[in-house]
Amino acid sequence: MLEKIKINRKNRTPLYLQIKNQIQEMIIQDLIPKGMRLPPTRKLSQMLGVNRSTVISSYNELLAEGFVESHVGKGTVVVGKKLTEEGIYSLSPLIWSEYFGVSSRTIHNSIIRESANWLSQEDVISLASGYSPPEYYPIEDFQKIMNRLLEKKSHMILNQSTCQGYFPLREILSKKMMFEGISANPNEILIVSGSMQGLYLLAKILLEPGDLVVVEKPTFLGALQIFSEFGARIIGVPVDEEGMRVDILENIVSRQKPKIIYTLPTYQNPSGAVLSLERRKKLLNLAYKYHIGIIEDDPSSKFYYENEPPPSLKSLDRSNYVIYLSTFSKLLFPGLRIGWLAASRQVIGRITRTRQFIDISSNTLGEYVFSEFLRDNLLEKHLDELRRLYSRKKDVMISALSKYCSSLMKWSKPEGGFYVWCNLNKGLSSRELLRESFYEKVAFIQGGTFFPEEIEGEAWLRLSFTYEKEDLIEEGIKRLSKAIKKLKKKSKTDIEKDELYINPIV
Amino acid sequence: MLEKIKINRKNRTPLYLQIKNQIQEMIIQDLIPKGMRLPPTRKLSQMLGVNRSTVISSYNELLAEGFVESHVGKGTVVVGKKLTEEGIYSLSPLIWSEYFGVSSRTIHNSIIRESANWLSQEDVISLASGYSPPEYYPIEDFQKIMNRLLEKKSHMILNQSTCQGYFPLREILSKKMMFEGISANPNEILIVSGSMQGLYLLAKILLEPGDLVVVEKPTFLGALQIFSEFGARIIGVPVDEEGMRVDILENIVSRQKPKIIYTLPTYQNPSGAVLSLERRKKLLNLAYKYHIGIIEDDPSSKFYYENEPPPSLKSLDRSNYVIYLSTFSKLLFPGLRIGWLAASRQVIGRITRTRQFIDISSNTLGEYVFSEFLRDNLLEKHLDELRRLYSRKKDVMISALSKYCSSLMKWSKPEGGFYVWCNLNKGLSSRELLRESFYEKVAFIQGGTFFPEEIEGEAWLRLSFTYEKEDLIEEGIKRLSKAIKKLKKKSKTDIEKDELYINPIV
Repeated sequence: MLEKIKINRKNRTPLYLQIKNQIQEMIIQDLIPKGMRLPPTRKLSQMLGVNRSTVISSYNELLAEGFVESHVGKGTVVVGKKLTEEGIYSLSPLIWSEYFGVSSRTIHNSIIRESANWLSQEDVISLASGYSPPEYYPIEDFQKIMNRLLEKKSHMILNQSTCQGYFPLREILSKKMMFEGISANPNEILIVSGSMQGLYLLAKILLEPGDLVVVEKPTFLGALQIFSEFGARIIGVPVDEEGMRVDILENIVSRQKPKIIYTLPTYQNPSGAVLSLERRKKLLNLAYKYHIGIIEDDPSSKFYYENEPPPSLKSLDRSNYVIYLSTFSKLLFPGLRIGWLAASRQVIGRITRTRQFIDISSNTLGEYVFSEFLRDNLLEKHLDELRRLYSRKKDVMISALSKYCSSLMKWSKPEGGFYVWCNLNKGLSSRELLRESFYEKVAFIQGGTFFPEEIEGEAWLRLSFTYEKEDLIEEGIKRLSKAIKKLKKKSKTDIEKDELYINPIV
Repeated sequence: MLEKIKINRKNRTPLYLQIKNQIQEMIIQDLIPKGMRLPPTRKLSQMLGVNRSTVISSYNELLAEGFVESHVGKGTVVVGKKLTEEGIYSLSPLIWSEYFGVSSRTIHNSIIRESANWLSQEDVISLASGYSPPEYYPIEDFQKIMNRLLEKKSHMILNQSTCQGYFPLREILSKKMMFEGISANPNEILIVSGSMQGLYLLAKILLEPGDLVVVEKPTFLGALQIFSEFGARIIGVPVDEEGMRVDILENIVSRQKPKIIYTLPTYQNPSGAVLSLERRKKLLNLAYKYHIGIIEDDPSSKFYYENEPPPSLKSLDRSNYVIYLSTFSKLLFPGLRIGWLAASRQVIGRITRTRQFIDISSNTLGEYVFSEFLRDNLLEKHLDELRRLYSRKKDVMISALSKYCSSLMKWSKPEGGFYVWCNLNKGLSSRELLRESFYEKVAFIQGGTFFPEEIEGEAWLRLSFTYEKEDLIEEGIKRLSKAIKKLKKKSKTDIEKDELYINPIV
């Protein structure tokens, strides 16, 4: 019987366990009867072509779990199936990782998530998170609205919502977007559980393995993860001060046939760049010319600190080529997980049907709360406050950078959004810097995270100025400069003092 | 140039649009210069092998959108690219459905969702929804808890949660499950946005196209949708009064190699059957013998109206073969979208990493609310109330069925859960009955929905007794009997009066 044992050296399960599992299975399946003597370890190891110590380990496991007994002179004898008191086999735990699909690719612990754990330590200064500081949440407004809702609609706010989302929220979003030049009726809007989910659902209905997707380079990490998850090939187009290099894009699309262009045109994550109006028009015309759909991800266009940005791609588009994605999470209550998507009814309909068996709907309470906030114009009030706050924080960060880091790196001067994008002096790696900054207790996101090919972002890092208090931002930059200096000392290559200026945004 | 036009008769886009789109593209791409005369429609239609009327339609579209002009004697002349005032091409809308991936299969509007729309009409009696009646939500408890949370943790309850879920909720769920014999520490628990999402995430990390999944027959519609979405082959094992026919399962697994067995062992949806303790043990031992993972979906085991059901599979399993899935949604506040999953750390870890780019986390407020409800033992109180209520409602439904339907169908007598599973007399179709009951204003779920092969469920229907008030349940059954009688009259085949008793659960 034991000659039927199969050894698979490519399998992640150790050989001794493979052998043990198969013998155990034979015992449970009555293929090896109770009382039978297993072959001596030397003999079985020769038979299977493995080390004797491997077979010894297998036998020891079987012994430990009570499937066999060992008697001097009699060798290893099968005891039989071992049942618990409840009449159930006692078995070693299933190794679930062997059951994971190969298409469920091994996903490395995202750096952002790791930073999130690290951040939870109280004395770490976070220049990593782009979320708004919770202490600014308008809790009194929230409480007022909750009380009102509980008085008027108590049961409804806790009852199941619809897949497409609470209609009055879609209605008021439709009106709000109209003021921004976007024409989308409530049926062309879908409420999602954060814009990340919106992007996931879009990729799910649109992408086939091998499909070509164009992204900015650098771009949002989550988008890169989602597109690779669906097996898309990703092409990155560089970004400069005016946003995506549409001239380079034209070269690409004239030779290849992308299905989708994914863009963050306004205060791009991480570069902070704004796609100029001229380029917005060129981008749209390119999409029209080559029949390419556009996903416009817009978490940040309301966060301008100087002039208002150019109109959204969606507002310029009259031909439904643009799918527009936005979220409340950067503005208020990210824990409520509410974002939205404006697109043609075909797209909305397909996603709604797909979503039925993913999470059915977003949480109803969040939908009601944001409807009320919008109706009472409370979001606008909060946004004004955040704009003033972030503008000050940005200035604090930029002057701290000038004070502490001017000989160590270059950085962008954002007109909006949440991030400063920094380019380390030649020879320094942000991946290595992250290790140093761990000891200095300051967190940032390393540049590689934002590139389809991580190595391209080696010299870059993203600093966020939204989350920490102003004095901590200054202190954070000071710590960062210390970390860079330490790294510089360690690095063997000499840094040239007068190196070429590297455009901090490209 | 126009000889390059490609006609694809398999494409869903009409031929005239295919031709129009390609000419338009040539104009935009400057391949056809301004002032050029297009060939006469007769000539182009011969060239392309299509009807002349098709080409005429193409030209008319181009004319309507201003790409060409038509002059008597001069024919159809290219005007050139047409820009809007903003400098953007004016184009017909993108047909997004052509961009949908083929792997994003066309999903029919789920019947449950359609019923949901139909249900929103006020005078329809719903025997379709298994949700709890919102008027019983303990709103005062909710308000008390909200006030307490707002006082103590105001900002935290609205801030971003973690992928795996709010730790104190996992902690208290771990303790609660321990009382039910399930050993799962907080790291072996994941909070999901409803158990549907839990099942989706499990399928996502486990299933490859072609993988074999065993389900009960009938089973939960959502599971069938999810498994087919990931390309699994689905085998249904019949259910009788003692739940899944484990003897038939053994025949199957001894010949084929399923990866996963999906089961609702307690008050199964839709049959209401309970897997007996004997069969639970056999099922586990079969899984151990053939190394098959088990997903135990348990939305309803707390809803017993007579004896308590046997222990869960998860509590009997000592070898981590069982993944346990449950939800708050059937008990309380389905709008908060909170469920959970207990499984080996490998499974929890993989799902947590996958979820990062799907919806990041569940909503924080819901996590806090249920933590507090559990801590204050308020769920137990509400559950007691619902058990009494549902038990009464079930009795009302069963006696109404005896009164109005005994000559029309047979039905199950559930000891728990939310549903009565009915088998129409020979020759009657629940699909056709749904149409009749639309006019009678009573809703139910047709049986085909619950079978891998819809046709197998033709004679079955699921009635839910949880949602409507008691007098409306009686009225609903009365209406249903009217609808069946109408259908009976219409159906051409004569119904034999004394047909064989058909087991209402198989």
